[in-house]
Amino acid sequence: MGLTIGVDIGGTKIAAGVVDEKGSILETRTVPTPPTPDAVVDAIADAVRTVGSGSAEAVGIGAAGYVDDKRATVLFAPNIRWRREALKDRIEQRVGLPVVVENDANAAAWGEYRFGAGAGHEDVVCITLGTGLGGGIIIGGRLHRGRFGVAGEFGHVRVVPDGLLCGCGSQGCWEQYASGRALVRYARQRAAATPEAAAALLALGDGTPEGIDGRHVSLAARGGDPVAVDSFRELARWVGAGLADLASLFDPSAFIVGGGVSDEGDLVLEPIRKSFRRWLVGGRYRPHAEVLAARLGGQAGLVGAADLARHG
Amino acid sequence: MGLTIGVDIGGTKIAAGVVDEKGSILETRTVPTPPTPDAVVDAIADAVRTVGSGSAEAVGIGAAGYVDDKRATVLFAPNIRWRREALKDRIEQRVGLPVVVENDANAAAWGEYRFGAGAGHEDVVCITLGTGLGGGIIIGGRLHRGRFGVAGEFGHVRVVPDGLLCGCGSQGCWEQYASGRALVRYARQRAAATPEAAAALLALGDGTPEGIDGRHVSLAARGGDPVAVDSFRELARWVGAGLADLASLFDPSAFIVGGGVSDEGDLVLEPIRKSFRRWLVGGRYRPHAEVLAARLGGQAGLVGAADLARHG
Amino acid sequence: MGLTIGVDIGGTKIAAGVVDEKGSILETRTVPTPPTPDAVVDAIADAVRTVGSGSAEAVGIGAAGYVDDKRATVLFAPNIRWRREALKDRIEQRVGLPVVVENDANAAAWGEYRFGAGAGHEDVVCITLGTGLGGGIIIGGRLHRGRFGVAGEFGHVRVVPDGLLCGCGSQGCWEQYASGRALVRYARQRAAATPEAAAALLALGDGTPEGIDGRHVSLAARGGDPVAVDSFRELARWVGAGLADLASLFDPSAFIVGGGVSDEGDLVLEPIRKSFRRWLVGGRYRPHAEVLAARLGGQAGLVGAADLARHG
Amino acid sequence: MGLTIGVDIGGTKIAAGVVDEKGSILETRTVPTPPTPDAVVDAIADAVRTVGSGSAEAVGIGAAGYVDDKRATVLFAPNIRWRREALKDRIEQRVGLPVVVENDANAAAWGEYRFGAGAGHEDVVCITLGTGLGGGIIIGGRLHRGRFGVAGEFGHVRVVPDGLLCGCGSQGCWEQYASGRALVRYARQRAAATPEAAAALLALGDGTPEGIDGRHVSLAARGGDPVAVDSFRELARWVGAGLADLASLFDPSAFIVGGGVSDEGDLVLEPIRKSFRRWLVGGRYRPHAEVLAARLGGQAGLVGAADLARHG
Repeated sequence: MGLTIGVDIGGTKIAAGVVDEKGSILETRTVPTPPTPDAVVDAIADAVRTVGSGSAEAVGIGAAGYVDDKRATVLFAPNIRWRREALKDRIEQRVGLPVVVENDANAAAWGEYRFGAGAGHEDVVCITLGTGLGGGIIIGGRLHRGRFGVAGEFGHVRVVPDGLLCGCGSQGCWEQYASGRALVRYARQRAAATPEAAAALLALGDGTPEGIDGRHVSLAARGGDPVAVDSFRELARWVGAGLADLASLFDPSAFIVGGGVSDEGDLVLEPIRKSFRRWLVGGRYRPHAEVLAARLGGQAGLVGAADLARHG
Repeated sequence: MGLTIGVDIGGTKIAAGVVDEKGSILETRTVPTPPTPDAVVDAIADAVRTVGSGSAEAVGIGAAGYVDDKRATVLFAPNIRWRREALKDRIEQRVGLPVVVENDANAAAWGEYRFGAGAGHEDVVCITLGTGLGGGIIIGGRLHRGRFGVAGEFGHVRVVPDGLLCGCGSQGCWEQYASGRALVRYARQRAAATPEAAAALLALGDGTPEGIDGRHVSLAARGGDPVAVDSFRELARWVGAGLADLASLFDPSAFIVGGGVSDEGDLVLEPIRKSFRRWLVGGRYRPHAEVLAARLGGQAGLVGAADLARHG
Repeated sequence: MGLTIGVDIGGTKIAAGVVDEKGSILETRTVPTPPTPDAVVDAIADAVRTVGSGSAEAVGIGAAGYVDDKRATVLFAPNIRWRREALKDRIEQRVGLPVVVENDANAAAWGEYRFGAGAGHEDVVCITLGTGLGGGIIIGGRLHRGRFGVAGEFGHVRVVPDGLLCGCGSQGCWEQYASGRALVRYARQRAAATPEAAAALLALGDGTPEGIDGRHVSLAARGGDPVAVDSFRELARWVGAGLADLASLFDPSAFIVGGGVSDEGDLVLEPIRKSFRRWLVGGRYRPHAEVLAARLGGQAGLVGAADLARHG
Repeated sequence: MGLTIGVDIGGTKIAAGVVDEKGSILETRTVPTPPTPDAVVDAIADAVRTVGSGSAEAVGIGAAGYVDDKRATVLFAPNIRWRREALKDRIEQRVGLPVVVENDANAAAWGEYRFGAGAGHEDVVCITLGTGLGGGIIIGGRLHRGRFGVAGEFGHVRVVPDGLLCGCGSQGCWEQYASGRALVRYARQRAAATPEAAAALLALGDGTPEGIDGRHVSLAARGGDPVAVDSFRELARWVGAGLADLASLFDPSAFIVGGGVSDEGDLVLEPIRKSFRRWLVGGRYRPHAEVLAARLGGQAGLVGAADLARHG
């Protein structure tokens, strides 16, 4: 198969791109994400038709939420409010190409495995530290989707009994402690408790703890601001401890850490590695998985979805 | 391949048995576990030679600890004090048959998958609630061993930050909350705090909380003793919550719960199922894995090890 | 001193009452709580003037928030948005009587100590399980206000590290686990996870978990509904464990449990007592404090404030 | 009253000293702690008679454990194995002086309040970070003993649900996270997980994590060793968070931090203060208590016990 189209459905925009066998994006098109579930389906079809222009042979779509084991139906997409949405059928009817639907974090994991940081590894666990926390699992060179299609929901593993409320209805979910949103909360809580120590960080926003956002924390941390650095460390503690648990469960040869938070590179990767070693059980008696930074940035999902359409 | 030998190395005894292609045990031999690492190797070889008597074609050994990805070397066995023990080579030299070494919980999981509760499932997660907590993972009909051979160490996933100390050196490990040892601790703590309510349970032992053992808790719970029943419920809460996390990660079609604690059947299985449903994230929008009782009892490890020797 | 006036400032209404030396309320007046901080001051003054009618000699005001050690200034009242509000001076100028300001939970504790469940005790810790969790401490027959006036803020003691977010900006505060709001959350979470088991409870509201309120949980629990009863038990676990900690710290002869949740009587008191005994450290070697139900209901704060105005 | 005798009963030695009204120790005598309960009583009497030599008028004894509200009977002393030991009567019979018995941490708190860091404060909470964690409470210039004599057992307040096992039979007790023993555990755990980073610290002992003791951690931390410094920070996190809770409960004007761990001064005090500010609820709207280092070192208990004998 030659070219395929990958689609990445985000909360604010939908990106479609034509991708070749080497994972290179030849052409992309981006449209805003419409507000209603049906309009999103239309927008996906439009974006695919516009970008594809006859050259592509299949479509892979990455969507946040549960996708069934046939890679056809979105069982539940919290942001777009799809419930048992037969996305594969509806898009195939409109664009006349075979379609596979995939969880977006799975697609991103596959992208990194195939064309990014995963080179040389066959057993890889990827986490995506975006606003929330997503994940994907490659075992023996294959995407592990689970019996019902919903494996790899790392963000909702409980890491603190009776812990923070999560939008999923549960408590203590890992993504409440290890995500971009968690990072901002760490910074805001520190700024509220000790405003004098956080004066520089507060000054980047409107002066209130609530005015601090993720870019402020990153900017301040790069400059060595102690409150921002401490917030990244807190994040890293939870990420690293969770990776240690995933090592006990999956035993991959590498972890790939992606998502916006990981753009900070060693500022966040090094403390994650340190925490990983701290919490890895039996660390003296077992080979250690590598903890790698993702390489494809925000395009991992689109590239991965396109490749999954090719490789089934 | 016809008959194979399975070996199960326990803390107090070593069992070897000849097993046929259908998982039936034709003959077994049991010897006490010797106190020194080298003597254990001798005892295994003796048991295999005695029971095998020329009829078997391969040997599978299940050992507690880390086994390397070549299924040849025990990297670390806490109880027997093996460190980088080349068990495959040493046993092959003595018994003249091909040997594979496997983690004991993996072997038990494989046994249940092949000949026990796993019938009709290709994606199964097994947990063994013995003194500690072990586990094994079957994905697509294959045992998931991990890149380095040490996957499925469920017992040492951290479920309580800053939680109970574990023999592994970490804190808050699942097996401190979900195991036979944990069950006894729950009963003893309740008996110490409210001895009047636990009078019947205390009377089964020597009258002190420390005198309560697992058999007392089981016996009392069967009779409806509220302290014993409450101890099983506490255990079940932790088991079920952990299975919900494993569903988020692995998404199997079935969980199999084995080990001595599971011998109590629905007394422990029903509250585990209830807790599983309580904590399953997104439970309304996804198929639910079944939670099944193991069927092979204490022979799962031996049978599984024998079958792994056959099927590579 | 003869009659005094007690004022209880709630989120929705302000109650003022004339109280005699025996804690009997002779006359009351209730007005809605106005929306702005200054208007609340006016409303208090109006209510006092109307009800007092020349007969009373002093005024005691109970307000939610931090009150300074001079019992004059409200440092911080989250609901009414007072910041360093000189309430004593402003009310004295308007009503021409001496005024003392007190934390509302302290006032309620004092009321119960003097005229309610505290009879015969000189060292009492009171908790009020309302929407949130308040408390008051009597040591040697005197209200313990702390050096700065802000002692007894039980609701914001951390009981779960990294736990639930609290409106105070911290995490894991006791009131997130032990309060009317917590009780409703327990019921809603259970109803969302296992709707079939919660069918009866759901039917009391609009059929959704969010439609369940505190009255539904109480009503269902009285009828033995297992989900509602389990929610009360979860609440009681946290209340009892916290009381055990307070026993380690304060060692009172009695705890008094008040607030709307405690109206359920033994339905909630018995499991609280059980949990208290379960968690009381050294319980075999020390006298146990009693755990008593409050007796004054919603009037404890008004009566207590009036009595504090009398007894300074 | 002129001179009194203070006695401090430790796990390894018993110290008795003659103390004047200003808290100065005129003379001391130290004997090893005998192994049996009755022998300890004899040793105390001998030490008192030897050191007192007719000059003193009363005796105050500080003992680890629960002391009843009459300050006469040790209800429970875990180390010395006293159970309902009528210590006051037995010592009075032997030495012919009036005796008061006090919890040792209470005695130390009183010593610091009267002659140490407590100058100028009337509401003080003291914690003693020794092997374990003890505490004492001064309210309005009086020792708060509680209704039954067992107040101020800070070490056994639960700070982590399902947390570390404690010798008291409970779980998650503060002293498991905030004590000299906890500090050593932090260092050992870090050394076991990342031995390369802890090489310098390990070299102070026998090279193994278990070989690290408290003096090693202190010595290394003073030299800036990162693993040791990190261990002190972990300790300080838990101490400071606990003090913030005690501020919510008691609202003192000062905390005094004593015990061997506090000998490190600002190395440990500064991070404790930082953590205290971080976790103090409502910190922007309330006066902050000071966090002070104890001044009397190991003599606080003896001096305090002597003074309590004088002042009843």
